[in-house]
Order: sequence, then C-alpha cells, then structure tokens
Amino acid sequence: MNDAERWRELGQQLRVDSIRAAAVTKSGHPTSSMSAADLMAVLLDKYLRYDFDAPDDPHNDRLVFSKGHASPLLYSLYRAAGAIDEQELLTFRTFGSRLQGHPTPEIPWVDVATGSLGQGLPYGVGIALAGKKLDRLPYRIWVLCGDSEVAEGSMWEAFEHAAFYGLDNLTAIIDVNRLGQRGETMHGWDLDSYANRAEAFGWHTIKIDGHDVEAIDRAYAEAIATEGRPTVVIAKTIKGKGVREVENKPGWHGKALDHPDEAIEELGGVRNIFVDVAKPDRSAEPRRFETSGPLELPSWDEGDEAATRRAYGDALAALGSARGDVVALDGEVNNSTYAEIFAEAHPERYFEMYIAEQQLVAAAVGLQVRDWVPFASSFAAFFSRAYDFIRMAAISRANIRLCGSHAGVSIGEDGPSQMALEDLAMMRAVHGSTVLYPCDANQTARLVEQMADREGIVFLRTTRAATPVIYAAGEDFPIGGSRVVREGDDLAIVAAGITLHEALKAAESLAEDGIEARVIDLYSVKPVDAETLRAAADATGGRILTVEDHWPEGGIGDAVLEALSDGEAPAHMTRLAVRDMPGSGKPAELLAAAGIDAEHIAEAARSLVEAAVGAR
Amino acid sequence: MNDAERWRELGQQLRVDSIRAAAVTKSGHPTSSMSAADLMAVLLDKYLRYDFDAPDDPHNDRLVFSKGHASPLLYSLYRAAGAIDEQELLTFRTFGSRLQGHPTPEIPWVDVATGSLGQGLPYGVGIALAGKKLDRLPYRIWVLCGDSEVAEGSMWEAFEHAAFYGLDNLTAIIDVNRLGQRGETMHGWDLDSYANRAEAFGWHTIKIDGHDVEAIDRAYAEAIATEGRPTVVIAKTIKGKGVREVENKPGWHGKALDHPDEAIEELGGVRNIFVDVAKPDRSAEPRRFETSGPLELPSWDEGDEAATRRAYGDALAALGSARGDVVALDGEVNNSTYAEIFAEAHPERYFEMYIAEQQLVAAAVGLQVRDWVPFASSFAAFFSRAYDFIRMAAISRANIRLCGSHAGVSIGEDGPSQMALEDLAMMRAVHGSTVLYPCDANQTARLVEQMADREGIVFLRTTRAATPVIYAAGEDFPIGGSRVVREGDDLAIVAAGITLHEALKAAESLAEDGIEARVIDLYSVKPVDAETLRAAADATGGRILTVEDHWPEGGIGDAVLEALSDGEAPAHMTRLAVRDMPGSGKPAELLAAAGIDAEHIAEAARSLVEAAVGAR
Repeated sequence: MNDAERWRELGQQLRVDSIRAAAVTKSGHPTSSMSAADLMAVLLDKYLRYDFDAPDDPHNDRLVFSKGHASPLLYSLYRAAGAIDEQELLTFRTFGSRLQGHPTPEIPWVDVATGSLGQGLPYGVGIALAGKKLDRLPYRIWVLCGDSEVAEGSMWEAFEHAAFYGLDNLTAIIDVNRLGQRGETMHGWDLDSYANRAEAFGWHTIKIDGHDVEAIDRAYAEAIATEGRPTVVIAKTIKGKGVREVENKPGWHGKALDHPDEAIEELGGVRNIFVDVAKPDRSAEPRRFETSGPLELPSWDEGDEAATRRAYGDALAALGSARGDVVALDGEVNNSTYAEIFAEAHPERYFEMYIAEQQLVAAAVGLQVRDWVPFASSFAAFFSRAYDFIRMAAISRANIRLCGSHAGVSIGEDGPSQMALEDLAMMRAVHGSTVLYPCDANQTARLVEQMADREGIVFLRTTRAATPVIYAAGEDFPIGGSRVVREGDDLAIVAAGITLHEALKAAESLAEDGIEARVIDLYSVKPVDAETLRAAADATGGRILTVEDHWPEGGIGDAVLEALSDGEAPAHMTRLAVRDMPGSGKPAELLAAAGIDAEHIAEAARSLVEAAVGAR
Repeated sequence: MNDAERWRELGQQLRVDSIRAAAVTKSGHPTSSMSAADLMAVLLDKYLRYDFDAPDDPHNDRLVFSKGHASPLLYSLYRAAGAIDEQELLTFRTFGSRLQGHPTPEIPWVDVATGSLGQGLPYGVGIALAGKKLDRLPYRIWVLCGDSEVAEGSMWEAFEHAAFYGLDNLTAIIDVNRLGQRGETMHGWDLDSYANRAEAFGWHTIKIDGHDVEAIDRAYAEAIATEGRPTVVIAKTIKGKGVREVENKPGWHGKALDHPDEAIEELGGVRNIFVDVAKPDRSAEPRRFETSGPLELPSWDEGDEAATRRAYGDALAALGSARGDVVALDGEVNNSTYAEIFAEAHPERYFEMYIAEQQLVAAAVGLQVRDWVPFASSFAAFFSRAYDFIRMAAISRANIRLCGSHAGVSIGEDGPSQMALEDLAMMRAVHGSTVLYPCDANQTARLVEQMADREGIVFLRTTRAATPVIYAAGEDFPIGGSRVVREGDDLAIVAAGITLHEALKAAESLAEDGIEARVIDLYSVKPVDAETLRAAADATGGRILTVEDHWPEGGIGDAVLEALSDGEAPAHMTRLAVRDMPGSGKPAELLAAAGIDAEHIAEAARSLVEAAVGAR
C-alpha cells in the first residue's frame, strides 16, 4: 500500500470510528468529522510530531480542534495513534468518560477546551507566539477550523495577529463542508471568499480538494516550507463524506446516523490501522530568560498616594525580573493599565495585542499551554468583550491572570462606557475563579506576587485614581483573607478598593457621633473570608453595611451575603452600590451621586444602627 | 467662499471647538477629533440629511461615531448645526451635562452609545438592515470609525454582514490617523492594508487624503452612487492636525492640549459658521407589515411535555403574526432555539446572523433604533460572546430581547462548552435588565408576550429538554412575580426552569416523610418577587432552599438573598447549585452529579429542617 492508499484507508477508518463513537449515545457530530477525516489522516500519518506518552513535552507539535464538535474525529485519531483503545472510544459522551462531547484538557492530549466556535485559532495564535517568540522551538501548531466559525470576529483577530507576528509555525486548516448547523454558510463552497480574506490579512493561502490526499500532502509540505507568515489550507470537503444517507445533506449536523451499521459497511467496514506518530525534534531546549535575583517588590510609604493600577505595573515588572516565566500582554492601553512598565523592562516577554480583547485573553490561554505565566491587562470593562473566552478558559483548566483597570464610577469624566460596573459579577461567576480588589499600592504588589502561582482564572481589579497608602510595605494579604482595618462593634462596613477609603472616612465621622464602625477590607472578593465576616456579624448584632463601586448584583454585597448565608445571617444588612446609570463628572461627584462616598456611607450607617436599636 | 473654502473653514471651526470643549475639564480626545474634522465638515454641510428638531423622524440619516472618544468633534458638529449653543458645548464632561465623555442617547441625536471600540459599525449594520429590509426608506447610515478599532473582530463581523446583506445604504469612514492610545497601530498609514481587507470582504473601497475636502466630497458622492454593496472611505489623516504642538505626535491620545489658546490662534481663532443641515427625504412612509388579528398564543395541555425553547419559537411566531413590528434574529442555531418557527412564518422579518454573536446583538440594538422590536436568540452560553455589547446596549437605553437556550448541565451530552452556567449572573448584572426563566411552555408563551413591550435588556432563559406542562394556558405570569406552586410551612424550596420540576418531585417525597415544603417558581429572577420570598421566610422560620442549574454565584441564590437582605434574613439557607465542572452524560445523570436533582433537593431539605429543629 503506498502512502496515498494508506491515507485513504486511514480516512475511512476515522469516518467509521466517528460513526461508531456517535452511535453509542446517539449523539454527536459524525458528519462534521467525516468531512475532515482525510485532512487529519494525512496530518497524523506524515506531519504531526507528537509523543503521546509525553504530552507535556515542550517539543511536541500542538493540534487544536477549533471545530470542537468534530470530537469524534479527534478521538478516532487517538485510537489510530494507539493512545486510546476501541473500548474507550466507545465511551464517547457517556457519563464519566473523558471523551466528552467537545474536547477538554481532561484528556492529556488536549491543550485547550473548544466547542464555543471561533476560539481554537486564537488559542493557536497564543501557542504559536510561545513557540516562536519565547520557547524558540521548531514545534508547529495545527488548527482544524470549521467554515461556519469563520464568521466569528475572533477568527479575524487571530488572522490579524498571526500575520502581524509572522507566525509561520501556525497552520490553519479550514474544512469547507458548506453546511452549518441550520443550513448553508454565507459562502458555501466559494473557496475564494475565504482565500481572498485570508490573503488580505497577510496569510499564505492554499486551496485544495480536501478529499484528495495527495493534494493535502502537498499543501502541508508547502505550509511547512512557507516562511515569515502563517498558512491557511482551505479545503473543499463534503459533510458526511462517504455515506449516501447523509453526504452533503442539510439536517445532519449534530446527529448520529440513523443506520450506523449500513454506513460502516458502505465505508468498507471497521479497520485497525495503527499510526506510529513521529516523535518531535528534541534537539534544542526551550529558551529560558535570565532573572536578576530574588523578588524585590516595589513599596510605597504609608500616607503617600498611589494608584493601584500603577502598583500593578511596578509589581509586575519586578516579578518579571525575578521570574523568567512571567509574560505580559495588553490590549493597546498599557499606558493606562501600566503594563507598559513591564513592557519596557522585559520587551521580549511583552506582547501588544492591540484592541482585540478576545485575542488578548486567547493568547494568554495559549501561552500558559506551554507553561508560561501570562498576565493580561485591559480596562476591566473591556474584559466583558472576552467573557466567552474567559468562561472557556475555565473549562480549559487554564491558569491565566487578568488585570482590569478603571473600575467603577470613580474613573470620572470618561463616562459609563469605560466604567467597569459588572466585572466583579462576571468574574465571580467563572468556575474556580479568584477575584481580587486591592485598595492600596503595597497590597496590590503582594497580590500580584501571589497571582503568579495561583491556579485557574485570577482577576485583579485596579483603580484609576491615586488612593492613600494605608498598609506598610511587606504586610501579608493572603488570597482568601480580608483585613479588619478599624475595630468597632456598632456595625461593620465591608468595602474594597476605592470605597474602602470612603468607608474609613465615614468611620471617622461616625466615631465623632459615638458610633464605632468596624471596617473590613474585602480585598479577596472570591474566595471570601467568611470567618471574619461572620465574626463581624456576631459582634455587631448582624449590622452589616456593604459598599461597592459596582452594580448591586453579583459583587461585594452578594459575596458577603453568600458568605453569611450558611450560618446565622445578618439581621440588618444595607447594601450600597451604583444603582443609576452614571454620566461624566469628577470622581468625587460621581461617588457622591452613586451614594457610595463617605458621606452616604455614614448616613446609611447611622440609619442601620438606629433601625437596629429601634427593632430591639 | 466656495464649497471647498467653506468646508476647510468649517473643519477648522470643528477643531477649535473640540479643543475648547476638552479644555473645560482638561480631559477628552481633541486630537482624535481634529484628524476627522474635515471628513465630518463635508458630511455635515453637504451629505447628511437630518432634522435636528425631529430626531425620531424615520426618514433621517443616522450618524454613528464608532470612535466614540471623538465626542468633542460630534458635539462641535451639533454646535455648527445649531442644535446646541456654545454655552452647552463648554459643559463637556462636567457633572450633569448630557455632553458626556463618550456619546450616549441621553443626547436626542445620538442613537447608540459608543466608547467601547469596534461597536459603532456593527450597530450601523443593524440600522442599515432596518432601512433596507424593513423600513425600505432611502435614509443612509454614516459611521465614523477609528483605525485602531479595526483590530476588533466585531468590526469584521460587521464588514461580513454588511456585504452579505448588500447594505449600500451604509458608509463607513475610517479615520486613519495612525496613532492609537499608546503608539502606532498595526498598519500605520498603510491604507492598502485596510482597503485590501475590506475589498476581500465585499465592500467598495475608496482611499483618500482625509484633509482634502474635494477628495472627501467625491468619495461621499461615489459612496452614495454605489449600489449593491456598502462603501468604506479610508482616509489618511493626521492626529492633532493643524496644531504643531500635537500634530502627528504620540502621547496625545485622550489629553486636552496644554496650550489651548495658542492652538486656537494657530487654527485661525473661533468661528461661528452655521450649517443649515439638509432635511431628509420624506416622500415615502416606512413599510409596515400586515398582521393577522389579535394575538393567539400557542397553548399546551397540562400534563403534556414540551421544551420551553420550543414554546419560545411558537410564541414568537404568534407574536409576529399579531404585531408587525416584531422581528427576530438568530446566530445560526435557529433549529435549536426554535427561532426557525418565526423565520418560516415571517421570513421578511427574520435575519440570520450566522455564528457572530456580537453582530447578532448589535443588529438587535440597531433595529430598535428604528423602533422595531427585536428578539435575538442563541445558546445562552454564547451570549457571553456579546457581553460587552449587552453592557453597552444598556448604556444605549436600548430595548432588546434576548433568548438564550440550552441552559445548564441539563443539556446533557454536549458538555460544558455548550452549557450556560453563568448567564443569570451575567444578565442580572446588566443595568436595568429583566431576567426570566420559565419552567413550562404556557408560562414561556406568556413571558414572551410581555417581553415585547418591556423596556431595557430582557433575557429569557430556556431549557433544552422537554419538561412537564404544569400551568394551564392563559394563566398570568407578570414580570416581577413568582408562583407558589405548592404550599407548605416546614421549608421553602425556591427554583426555576428545570429545577422547579425537580423541586416538585422532591416535595412529593418529603411529604411522604411528613415534611411540607412550599415550592416557589421564581420565573422572574430580576426583578424578583421579594414579598413572596419574605412571606415564605416568615412562614418557614427562615428555612429557604434554593436550587439552580447555574454556578453558585450571581443566579437564583443571590437573587433570593438580595431580596431577603433588606429585612429579616433567613436564619437557615441552603443553596444548591452546580459547583464542580460538569462533563458529558445524560441530563438526569448530570443533574444528579451536580446535586440539583429531586433526590439531592429532598436530602438537603431534610438536613435543613433537622438543623433548624436542632438549633431551637
């Protein structure tokens, strides 16, 4: 059997196995797998360099199924490579199986979860950046894309950035099977429409018949030989290829075949071709960056003023000096987030992602695939642009650190479009996330230090304005903790970030009236320090006042209520938050208008204490 | 003075006024305004058709500043048009002024809020769809774009859809001033890079010197004359044009000039050119669609089973028959969301937006600008892709209705990438939003009916699986209400959607043990029925059990706690939610694994009742 014959047979095996897998629970996407079977057969047999026994080996190529619903094909590849056996293949989509409906890194050979379309290629860009700019290893990134998903803007962020960074180690393969979930795509089989767009974006493009294995072979060889820019192989394919019942027919997306046995027979029956996948080139070691000794965090003097966003930049640059694995990215606002300090100190480990927040987060996910420690920053409001990527990053079990600046109405004149007022809610609702919100520069620095080794999605919310430094340098602020900044038993005021300072001012004023307020700095919004909050509720007769520069839903108020709801809940709780749509103005004017400045806090505190007295 | 001289003078006036406006609070983006001043001068004086006294007139052209930070230029246009006076111009960015840092519809001539970059063009596509496909009026949509924002994938979703729908009533103007916030853009002054991309996406492209008013004039005339496809005018401009201190210099984004008086002098001083903007063509009336009589909602028999997503499609189609203003959009999953029922019934009022959720939501926002009543649907998980657009839609005071299907782990085999588990948190944290989560088909239909006239961002969460019909057709389910489905005073179980049925099963089983559970159907998650919840807390000694197919943060549990936190809070509350990352499996297996099925609810209820007894 020559190569071409072998590839054709392997393609048929992948089709048969995809059909068999989907038949188990009568669900899945066999027809979307069948269109790309020949494309993947040639890749697995001749081009992929991968050690299935050592998925963490830095030298491995990376294969990303951006069209994650073609998971039956991916798992059939694993069987062909001997990574899983037939028995496991037939656990597809059953409860407890790692072979889920869409790939996740519960499988050791999957680096990023896909299934939300338009994400695999942006992740591929991140891994390719790691390979080309950081590791400097010859591994390649292969991304199988669907044609439907090319409609996602995030794909074009990826096209743009891959070309800009000259990522010739990246190959996208578009499986143009013409049919989406509910009908034909915008462009059907018009390969030129894809090629023209990709070329205009600076890619090398190759159009082929995706069932001609020799053409596929030539295309991959050409992709590897292309220097200075990424290549996209645009392959005309047939959905459900090889089985008359479903071939090129609408209405068969996301459905198992009605007659799998007949289909398998039509395809020539079950095969057991084993592919001894080529091992990667291990001749070089990944590049490591030199460090300049142990971490020396920046520090600020108590009583001075400094913006926490500035402290983020200073601390991150210091962290980068002490650790060669720390890298930073920003979305064209690094002079606002202060990621520019890192960029200037460590230019080789900084990636400018321009105004493309989806690619910003996706690049961070891709970089951590190769064990780099990415910190990505933007205005906190603009991370809402990448929420689907953040959600999926959690499913990817990714370790990424996001810093969102310009929180809340306190930013002032720019107005509501630039004010993050839902970021705490959004980030708290990410599985396994950590949400931090420092109020002073020294605290920020200590939190940035801890972020580097924290697992999962870690979010740091910083403030635009300079705020007083209230903690000594070097004080400890463990994630999951809180700080009682002022003692008192008449009520407890729970705040963080900008409102912590307002709360302290309010407490001063309350003390003049003989009301002693306990002030709690809830710098760790998730996980939250339930013990300290419960102690405060107990000590104050359940009089808790929360105050936050955020909408009322999903932020500090909810975090406090959740912490207290497991035990004796507060009898009297007041929640101050931003309730009306803000406009422009000076920060102080806007804090006052939102009812979250010192004066309003003091007023609410007095009401709370009086109501409690009245209720007795 | 000939036209060209007049335009040049007007351009200088717009620059001077932009500088004057930014000088007031020493903030804003005058240099980004100055680059586009000539482009807007010609537009205002010769091409725009707009009645400033009648901004709601359907015949008006629409001008969208996608680069919302150029607000000083927009407001300077208003002054030139006589819509605002000098005194008001000089309130720019001050507290209480409608002339905010970025434009919002607090200003009657602004249709959509901008300031999060990459959004204005997608909104423009929505308005252009209304003009071309619904209103069938000759108004034009002019969108001023920045060059930096072209990096946003959402811009390419807009380019793609505008070409696909042949929107020749849409003109994008890209102000290529080369400089972003922190430095040069990816493409600098390489106009071809923009032109090649836009052409590949099917647009007519015109490259000009953006300070040559005669070239601008010709470009706009050519845009208007171009049929069958949209036009983009790609204009090479100079940031800060006309003032040596800032001209073409980095470091001047988002900054007022240091020496405004000298700059104004350099530009030739203050001018008072008045532009009598041409009125729109009012010869035709907007098209209206025929209706087939009063609303006849679909109905289901009690005891039958039906999926709420199916009820959404049926109800929406019925609503479309009764109301000609209702339109629907979907992101290539209309056979899953059942928007396809509407699409088949009312094809002229259905827009397929393919897999581009940002453009999906943006189109809905654009359609409602022209008073159409859009319902946009996708998998609920994928609305996370468009969260920034939803956030901004609230700032736009837009009235849009979103239906997210496939909520929670109960979808089964597809796995976590397709499961909405953060959508309630995300949508609750949108300003002024409404969040609905029906459990049966008849309830869904009544909620869909109410959505049509509900203001703000309205979200309906539907379920993949068929669920029992428990309510009679025609029963009333007011937004903001809830339903006590079963009476009992030992504890209250609060649920919605799929978990309501599990709660009812649990209550049956508890009753066998002599525990009488009150079951509350919290179909309106926001606004929430605090009164019914408080009554339940009072009646049960504060024993509340919430159960939701959602992460613990930001959903039903938080909504209930928030409702109860104002008064006497529950002494004993248990929150059941999805706490571990789910995989694939049968719906029942996944509900059980997440601890939110009937068995786990009953178990938690017993513990809660016992703990309460123990605590007495």
